[in-house]
Amino acid sequence: MDDFFKLISTGECTALLDRFAPLASETVPLSAALGRVLAADIVARELLPPFSRSTMDGFAVRAANTFGCSESETALLTVVGEVAMGEPGRTLALAPGQAARIWTGGELPDKADAVVMVEYTRLLDPTTVAVFRPVAPGENVIRAGEDCRPGESILPASHRLRPQDLGVLAGLGLTEVPVHRRPRVAILSTGDELVPVDQTPPPGKIRDINSASLAALVEEAGGVAVPLGICADDFDRMQAICTEALAGCDLLLLSGGSSVGQRDFTLRVFAAIPGSELLAHGVSIRPGKPTIVAARANQALFGLPGHVASALVVFLLFVRPLLRRYQGLGTTLGLRTVRARTGQQIPSAIGREEYVRVRLEESADGGLPLALPVYGKSGLLGPLIRAHGLLRVDRDSEGLDRGVEVTVLLFP
Amino acid sequence: MDDFFKLISTGECTALLDRFAPLASETVPLSAALGRVLAADIVARELLPPFSRSTMDGFAVRAANTFGCSESETALLTVVGEVAMGEPGRTLALAPGQAARIWTGGELPDKADAVVMVEYTRLLDPTTVAVFRPVAPGENVIRAGEDCRPGESILPASHRLRPQDLGVLAGLGLTEVPVHRRPRVAILSTGDELVPVDQTPPPGKIRDINSASLAALVEEAGGVAVPLGICADDFDRMQAICTEALAGCDLLLLSGGSSVGQRDFTLRVFAAIPGSELLAHGVSIRPGKPTIVAARANQALFGLPGHVASALVVFLLFVRPLLRRYQGLGTTLGLRTVRARTGQQIPSAIGREEYVRVRLEESADGGLPLALPVYGKSGLLGPLIRAHGLLRVDRDSEGLDRGVEVTVLLFP
Repeated sequence: MDDFFKLISTGECTALLDRFAPLASETVPLSAALGRVLAADIVARELLPPFSRSTMDGFAVRAANTFGCSESETALLTVVGEVAMGEPGRTLALAPGQAARIWTGGELPDKADAVVMVEYTRLLDPTTVAVFRPVAPGENVIRAGEDCRPGESILPASHRLRPQDLGVLAGLGLTEVPVHRRPRVAILSTGDELVPVDQTPPPGKIRDINSASLAALVEEAGGVAVPLGICADDFDRMQAICTEALAGCDLLLLSGGSSVGQRDFTLRVFAAIPGSELLAHGVSIRPGKPTIVAARANQALFGLPGHVASALVVFLLFVRPLLRRYQGLGTTLGLRTVRARTGQQIPSAIGREEYVRVRLEESADGGLPLALPVYGKSGLLGPLIRAHGLLRVDRDSEGLDRGVEVTVLLFP
Repeated sequence: MDDFFKLISTGECTALLDRFAPLASETVPLSAALGRVLAADIVARELLPPFSRSTMDGFAVRAANTFGCSESETALLTVVGEVAMGEPGRTLALAPGQAARIWTGGELPDKADAVVMVEYTRLLDPTTVAVFRPVAPGENVIRAGEDCRPGESILPASHRLRPQDLGVLAGLGLTEVPVHRRPRVAILSTGDELVPVDQTPPPGKIRDINSASLAALVEEAGGVAVPLGICADDFDRMQAICTEALAGCDLLLLSGGSSVGQRDFTLRVFAAIPGSELLAHGVSIRPGKPTIVAARANQALFGLPGHVASALVVFLLFVRPLLRRYQGLGTTLGLRTVRARTGQQIPSAIGREEYVRVRLEESADGGLPLALPVYGKSGLLGPLIRAHGLLRVDRDSEGLDRGVEVTVLLFP
């Protein structure tokens, strides 16, 4: 067992995640695919749209027959029929001087190449229409294959599916799609002092907070949370739970016990798991120094600090990027950011990258919002509620002056 | 039946949503509360933390006994015991000159008011510790009630629950929370030309695209999608489906048939529903003009354009804000935005507010990203995939010059 941290930088810690591979592909129905990440390129299997369609209610025409027409000199066309919605349009064919009634979405008759909007026509009698505005070939028409042709790439692998993408896949006739499996994340809170949320803690004990917040962070990041509850500070018990959990999860999150004290078992437990490899113990950040990263083949094991505020920072900086990587996305934070201006001086110690919780407030001058530090010990809950995000202060910086333009990482 | 649109502005259309009230409260377990919106203020029922806790491994002391100590002149204290983790600490009481071993999270003994980190101590013999750095009262301690006291407001109604909020609620011993019910949204695609996604369309027909994209948009916005499938252009059938759907949903979304043509049944169907009130037919936007809004008590009925690109714009501008309102949030777009610079001139017609699909690309000079219009007929699917968001061009504007700073509404 190591008695001291060997601190690495955030960059070094993030680079450790490169060894983990995206999870295998599985097939899910379209209705369950929102937010999932494509595991393969999607290639069109057919022509879309399958036929040339009108985009307006009006008359399908040969565009050339309308050239030069106007309000004063209308083009008179013979109406030879109507394309009923949902029926084939090419059973009709337009000879020169002919037109056919058509509706939005209807299939163009043979030889028709444009549609005149009904607003620019007058029906003189059941078989004669006067057109008083010319159309160009292709006007008010989507041509067959204008969207895609068989073999054409539609969406690339690693694309996260948005609502409109699902619409497009539906249009292509895909009822299911190949996506990366969602990472299963086992979550264990450790500590003799913890009781479950539904209990009133006796003297000396407190409720388990991390299980609830970590499970929600996992779900938000696209993972499947598998909460294992609480484990007392007991090496054998902890090792048994971790070994069992690793049989069914991709990532194991332990909170508490990740430091170097006599009661900090996480490092020893990870080391005792057959096939495990310790990647890091200690990251040069504040809060979050007592962070452990280990691997067993493609499974990741994280020891997070017990304080909820510290665990949150470590989760966002390292666990969330790994969950993104497991899902086939980039190994990036993937957090929204906002430009802001510091509302007061924010001092920081040299030597550790600091993540200061900040609250955003509108500025009086209507410019960038103000980022105001929300101070408080990392074991306190109140500051977590009041903060909107994190502001990074560089390792070599003594802090940020008031009024400086900064980028705030927003909480998910 | 109206044969013409009575166009209203986007502002007028949004104002129509004010008549709808947030949905009733329901109680959900903490594990299902992520992203839900509180229906009541959350008030603490107890002291948090319930006792004064150490935030470090070290020795609990009376701070005054360490004043003035240093490396060269240590304070010698008598170790009278250890606070075992999870056990009551106040069974011990410190007399002047005494200290007790304590761990992170442990309860302070009686009369102790600070903790000296173990790094700043040397154990001389089992009952004597030398302290060589002084601590102030309260140092390395979270005091009982420092987070909250009974009756204190913790989170306000209308707050959307984030992962860390759930941690705080867990700490307060809340296993369930009151949240606004999720709106149930019935979705019906109308049109004789539509076939389900799993069918190969015969000539003249195409697959139903809107059901898939609207269901995903509803889920993304926090609603429960209830897809009803496809209905042919048949007044009686459509009315029967809508009437039945309204028995079990908060919002009804019809796509297709919302215009003023002979085949556009939506308006007539909405008007025929007992107790319904037409609020709008036609909004002065492009795309999205043929939009219908109606109400029956607190239920909303929307007629959306059939083209997926137009339906998407109308959904984001009006349906999504209503879903937010139903959930107890502000009646706002709630979309992420990004500042960008137009990468080319974007012309627009005066008289209608236009929402141009844009793609964001990094700019060569490293400044704001470039917003490039993704043109294409609104019935085409490709442009939807390539675009990242929407750029609004004012009703009274002829367009935007190249290089202008703009705000892009990002797709959810």
